[in-house]
Amino acid sequence: MTNTLYLPELREMLTENNTAGLQEFCTALHPARTAEFMEGLTAEEAWAVLQHADLLLRVEVFGFFEHQKQIEILETVDRAAVAEFVGSLPPDNRVDLLRDVRPEVVAELMPLISTDERRDIQRLSAYPEDTAGAVMTTQFARLSEEMPVGRALKEIGQQAGELETIYYLYVVDREDHLRGVVSARGLVSAMGKPDVLIQDLMERDLVTVNVAEDQEEVADKVARYNLSAIPVVDDEHHMLGIITHDDVIDVVVDEATEDAHRMGGMVPMVENYLEANFVTVWRKRAGWLSCLFIAELFTFTALASFEDAIAAILALSLFVPLCISTGGNSGSQAATLITRALAVGQVSARDWWRVLRHELAMGLALGLTLGAIGFVRAALTPQDILGDVSRWQLALVISESVAAICLWGTLAGSMLPLLFKRLGMDPGFASSPFVATLVDVTGIVIYFSIAQACLL
Amino acid sequence: MTNTLYLPELREMLTENNTAGLQEFCTALHPARTAEFMEGLTAEEAWAVLQHADLLLRVEVFGFFEHQKQIEILETVDRAAVAEFVGSLPPDNRVDLLRDVRPEVVAELMPLISTDERRDIQRLSAYPEDTAGAVMTTQFARLSEEMPVGRALKEIGQQAGELETIYYLYVVDREDHLRGVVSARGLVSAMGKPDVLIQDLMERDLVTVNVAEDQEEVADKVARYNLSAIPVVDDEHHMLGIITHDDVIDVVVDEATEDAHRMGGMVPMVENYLEANFVTVWRKRAGWLSCLFIAELFTFTALASFEDAIAAILALSLFVPLCISTGGNSGSQAATLITRALAVGQVSARDWWRVLRHELAMGLALGLTLGAIGFVRAALTPQDILGDVSRWQLALVISESVAAICLWGTLAGSMLPLLFKRLGMDPGFASSPFVATLVDVTGIVIYFSIAQACLL
Repeated sequence: MTNTLYLPELREMLTENNTAGLQEFCTALHPARTAEFMEGLTAEEAWAVLQHADLLLRVEVFGFFEHQKQIEILETVDRAAVAEFVGSLPPDNRVDLLRDVRPEVVAELMPLISTDERRDIQRLSAYPEDTAGAVMTTQFARLSEEMPVGRALKEIGQQAGELETIYYLYVVDREDHLRGVVSARGLVSAMGKPDVLIQDLMERDLVTVNVAEDQEEVADKVARYNLSAIPVVDDEHHMLGIITHDDVIDVVVDEATEDAHRMGGMVPMVENYLEANFVTVWRKRAGWLSCLFIAELFTFTALASFEDAIAAILALSLFVPLCISTGGNSGSQAATLITRALAVGQVSARDWWRVLRHELAMGLALGLTLGAIGFVRAALTPQDILGDVSRWQLALVISESVAAICLWGTLAGSMLPLLFKRLGMDPGFASSPFVATLVDVTGIVIYFSIAQACLL
Repeated sequence: MTNTLYLPELREMLTENNTAGLQEFCTALHPARTAEFMEGLTAEEAWAVLQHADLLLRVEVFGFFEHQKQIEILETVDRAAVAEFVGSLPPDNRVDLLRDVRPEVVAELMPLISTDERRDIQRLSAYPEDTAGAVMTTQFARLSEEMPVGRALKEIGQQAGELETIYYLYVVDREDHLRGVVSARGLVSAMGKPDVLIQDLMERDLVTVNVAEDQEEVADKVARYNLSAIPVVDDEHHMLGIITHDDVIDVVVDEATEDAHRMGGMVPMVENYLEANFVTVWRKRAGWLSCLFIAELFTFTALASFEDAIAAILALSLFVPLCISTGGNSGSQAATLITRALAVGQVSARDWWRVLRHELAMGLALGLTLGAIGFVRAALTPQDILGDVSRWQLALVISESVAAICLWGTLAGSMLPLLFKRLGMDPGFASSPFVATLVDVTGIVIYFSIAQACLL
């Protein structure tokens, strides 16, 4: 979906060295759109165009390039120029980037980056993936408690250019402990009283996250408290960084993708679908599919143990797919519902008893509904297929089995995510295919047990 | 999960009319925590406690109550007091609230609300659900082009208290057309030059949404452009309102829940799982399950048409669940992957040809993997079950069928979401159970066709 509208013009301006035109192109549009129009350019061309924007804008436009294009630029452009540029990138983004740049390039770049920035990069890249530390940025507005409003406003005016957000201003003491927060709104409202001290203006009860906390919990907190940024602290409450709302939206989207992939029965994949490596994707997909297939082999074992019943009444085998799919469908439905309720915090593992009672009633209601439909269909079976069995007997067996398996699928589907959660695993492992496979094998046993009891 | 820690103290303070204590309680904590501690109170008690906070804080704490508690308060408290309070609530939230308050209460409240606010409520509630208009708020910071920076700062200082965000300040002309935007950051940075006009400072290339656009597209734009708020305009580019990042996070979470529910085979449900009405939930779940069950009835028809083959070689029927579940699992996996890739914009319906080639290769690779496992297992079948058929013949039939069905499931699972998207439907309807059901019926036909060709 590359936008090729301006590509010829851009290339012409580059060859003609049309500085005025390129400057106009860089500044006229929203940086995100500027980036879109540059998508078709090579890394060298894109870098050449960016030289016509001032550093601040260059960083912004670069930030809207695709991840792959960003890496290409860092890998191809002159090392010294790139090193200086990397020093100006937002701390959280450059760490994500450098992680994917070829190691030999990083090794060449690092000595060229200023000591302060290099330390910052090393510190941030030490945090494990998916933790608050790995998502945070170290650029935030910092105030001290004894500062008067007038000076604070002036200071923020100077810092503002480099900061990702000035919506919240964080108040720290001399040892960098987080003491409070002032909103930009609050500070601007207090403009008329320039001598009031920050400590008399600041909010002291803060919502913070620990640097080791999982990014999903961070996203939950930000959503619950409607924050536009959340401060990240260590165990001693030292102020380490902030996580801004745009990174939180990315986390929410990524986590939803991960959950969806698990629910669909595959190892979560963050790579872009069309760009991911074939073998990697095959491994992620084949892994789960093979496990499920091996588990599903037990359906053969289960069926084989009822071989005599099948030989006696052939019609029984014709209803096997219907019966077991009922369990699979009702199971995936319940599993999805509970997994999602867990994800958005509507239920917790401790609520298992309430969920069980609820799903027991629901499973019965659903089972009766499907059982009734099954009864009608089975009663319409042609007599020549049935042999010695009366159609009413068969209809009764089918409807009882469908109802029982539906109830069982609903219970298994609802309890498995809670059990996984309790065991400290991701509840999403109780995916639709997983539940369906489990219920397939047990469904066969339920069905033939009922059939044997009633018909043989 | 109600927090009952402070309930006795709060009730005691209320009966003792301990004003100082209640004021302290209202102001000491973050409004979200204050609200949490009040969860166990009745609507009357909560309202009585809130009277000890100033109006701004009262609105904030109220905003963090559960939706149900908010409605209860509006329905039980003295109408005149509530009407005044409703006038101060954020425009987007009060419309959501009034939609769920009993109509007779709304009818009594509306005449008591000031004319301006009432018009605002009526205008906002006219927008269809899930559109930008229904999510936006009408409170935003407004500047005119000819205003100098100094006066703009003063004006924002005065407006700040009532506004949801002052991160962006919107510049409009006399007819209220949106002309540009100034970030709070930009305005504060320009503090040293109070005579510069806003029109020389403002960004003119704006990212906007139309009031009729779907909320999902709004969320996509906000995430793509890293915005903390997005302006909402009508077809003539009149400035109508803004949507802030916290509402966008709610939209992203709600849409992910909807997608997950569809993928799990049920009508999406926004209600809280444990609080939703039993009959409503039963209808949403039973509806889809019954449709799937009826579709699944065709497995019987398909199997019955191969009755002779089953009668001749009983062992064939024992592998039916294995074969068809392979299709279901590979199909749900592919469907999940493509649905999610569509949701996050990695592929579009136009990419169907690239997806098809990709999934053709992947389906073959996955089919060969599972076919190999199936071959080994089928070769181990005891001879007494097999009758006249050689175990190698059977193993060949099973592995060929598994591979073919896996390929077919992968193709069906990947193409259906794209087809639904093309038809203007939600791609999520290609849910795991839907794909599994489709592939179950066709899988039986594939399996027995291969078996008949090889064995009979």
